[in-house]
Amino acid sequence: MGVNRQLLLAKRPVGEPTPDDFEVKDVDSPSPGDGEALVRVLQISLDPAMRGWMSDTPSYAPPVGLGEVMRAVTTGVVVESRSDKLAPGDHVVGMLGVQEEGVAPADALTKVDTSMAPLPAFLGALGMPGLTAYFGLTEVGDMREGDTIVVSGAAGAVGSVAGQIAKAKGAASVVGIAGGPDKCQWITDELGFDAAIDYKAESVGRRLHELCPNGIDVYFDNVGGEILDAALANLAWGARVVICGAISQYNAEGGMRGPSNYMMLLVRRARMQGFLVFDYVKKYGEALKEMGAWVADGRLKHREEITEGSIEDFQPTLMKLFRGDNTGKLVLQIASD
Amino acid sequence: MGVNRQLLLAKRPVGEPTPDDFEVKDVDSPSPGDGEALVRVLQISLDPAMRGWMSDTPSYAPPVGLGEVMRAVTTGVVVESRSDKLAPGDHVVGMLGVQEEGVAPADALTKVDTSMAPLPAFLGALGMPGLTAYFGLTEVGDMREGDTIVVSGAAGAVGSVAGQIAKAKGAASVVGIAGGPDKCQWITDELGFDAAIDYKAESVGRRLHELCPNGIDVYFDNVGGEILDAALANLAWGARVVICGAISQYNAEGGMRGPSNYMMLLVRRARMQGFLVFDYVKKYGEALKEMGAWVADGRLKHREEITEGSIEDFQPTLMKLFRGDNTGKLVLQIASD
Repeated sequence: MGVNRQLLLAKRPVGEPTPDDFEVKDVDSPSPGDGEALVRVLQISLDPAMRGWMSDTPSYAPPVGLGEVMRAVTTGVVVESRSDKLAPGDHVVGMLGVQEEGVAPADALTKVDTSMAPLPAFLGALGMPGLTAYFGLTEVGDMREGDTIVVSGAAGAVGSVAGQIAKAKGAASVVGIAGGPDKCQWITDELGFDAAIDYKAESVGRRLHELCPNGIDVYFDNVGGEILDAALANLAWGARVVICGAISQYNAEGGMRGPSNYMMLLVRRARMQGFLVFDYVKKYGEALKEMGAWVADGRLKHREEITEGSIEDFQPTLMKLFRGDNTGKLVLQIASD
Repeated sequence: MGVNRQLLLAKRPVGEPTPDDFEVKDVDSPSPGDGEALVRVLQISLDPAMRGWMSDTPSYAPPVGLGEVMRAVTTGVVVESRSDKLAPGDHVVGMLGVQEEGVAPADALTKVDTSMAPLPAFLGALGMPGLTAYFGLTEVGDMREGDTIVVSGAAGAVGSVAGQIAKAKGAASVVGIAGGPDKCQWITDELGFDAAIDYKAESVGRRLHELCPNGIDVYFDNVGGEILDAALANLAWGARVVICGAISQYNAEGGMRGPSNYMMLLVRRARMQGFLVFDYVKKYGEALKEMGAWVADGRLKHREEITEGSIEDFQPTLMKLFRGDNTGKLVLQIASD
């Protein structure tokens, strides 16, 4: 019997997570029970939501318990199966957490077809972030042809897909907000956004005013903070503000900063609405079919930024995400296929 | 030809409006042109929105110009008419501003039936505040039978009506938030709210948690600030937050405070939406018919707090509103019928 290395949550972070908040533990390799499979974890997804899972404030999911394996979405390869739904060698996506091996019921693992896209893409454009972009834009944002769409965190896993879906669905104009010239160039030159705003170098409010002279119809927010306020100040009549995330605020020690321009919801008769991708689980199949076709015909491009390392690299890699150092979907690869 | 006394906006207030921000001017009495009427102003409505009209920040209405008559909704009696729609002695509601006499097109004046309710009620429960409560609750809040409703500013002109409409429309529970024991007693004992929270004496968050164990379905907000945050923390799944006003923030010199708990919109899959009563102008007649019937059968009680004085009393009376000193609709009476 082999050894499984796990990363446990040791403390609840105050502000930014630090290496001291985690500890590594070696345990015996697990064995699958009836209907379960043993999976060797290949890639670990780094997601902004992880910060919330480490806290014990009210949220949509229970916090990770202290001493428990850090929760994470992962890809992996089936090593042993006691279910007729999976066979050794199958590639799967599942919530196995930050560890080298994991056991899960076959029903909680999604078998993926790597002829369609490389495995890490199923953590990004063809995974939860992509579906989040899809339903946030179409269902919550109620996007219509001819709309002016603005996306923050536009070079991130969700934002980069949201902007491309907006184009594919007939938006008149799609503006992305991202940090730095490389990201801005990528979303316009490669992904087809109509314009980009570099929030590190430009006044977001002034640029939104220039780029969206008739106002923003759908604002898809991944970041919160000052950028959300700048977008609120530039809403069109009847605008929809989609609250997907607030990565600028997750590590704020003094508490979250609320959008001080929220009364623009009244001035512009707009609505602000939150959602989680899980609300649309019955429509995943339909959405993935449409998105798969866009990947095939080149309308939906995906990019993963892969850090190679071990579970010990989880915390520094997560910090890359909060610093905005990644372009596209950030993934920690801990084993090769 | 007589003299008309007017109150002009002399300066844009910084923070709270002060007497220096206004000046009185005597001008000749105006004469009505074709299709117009001359009205002697009887009562002036004091409304939170007035603070926004004094500022030149973007809003739903253009700011009052410096040197112009301060904008206000008023009641009055027709003195002279050059329209066949109005006759001397008719009682009307219109936007004549803070002055003793005014001229307006007959089409911009609403003739009211004082056998239905006393004249000042048409500035409150049967006027814009009442209609604001009606459409905010039914259209924006999408209130349904059995809902748990929470209203802030619950002893004010809008809030007191919103809570009563919620009861009339079959809410399971209506909780009002108001300042001080007298207001709390009035909304429960007289208006039929199920419970009241005195924000000056109690923890609003803890009391909401106790009084709304299944969460708030519709939160009708007139105040903003900490009370909005406390409500956000107690939303039910799929809740609707109606943004009607933010009186706690209108005089804030450091700028508005945004709701730091806005990510609860995501956690509870809720929406926050702004509106103005003018959006529903085509449905005013229908709403007033329903509300008039409730007034007649006693389900909708109205109360006006009338200050007697002259146009010079406008600023101190407005400050009563911002201090929350009024119960029910605050009105400045400058002449008697």
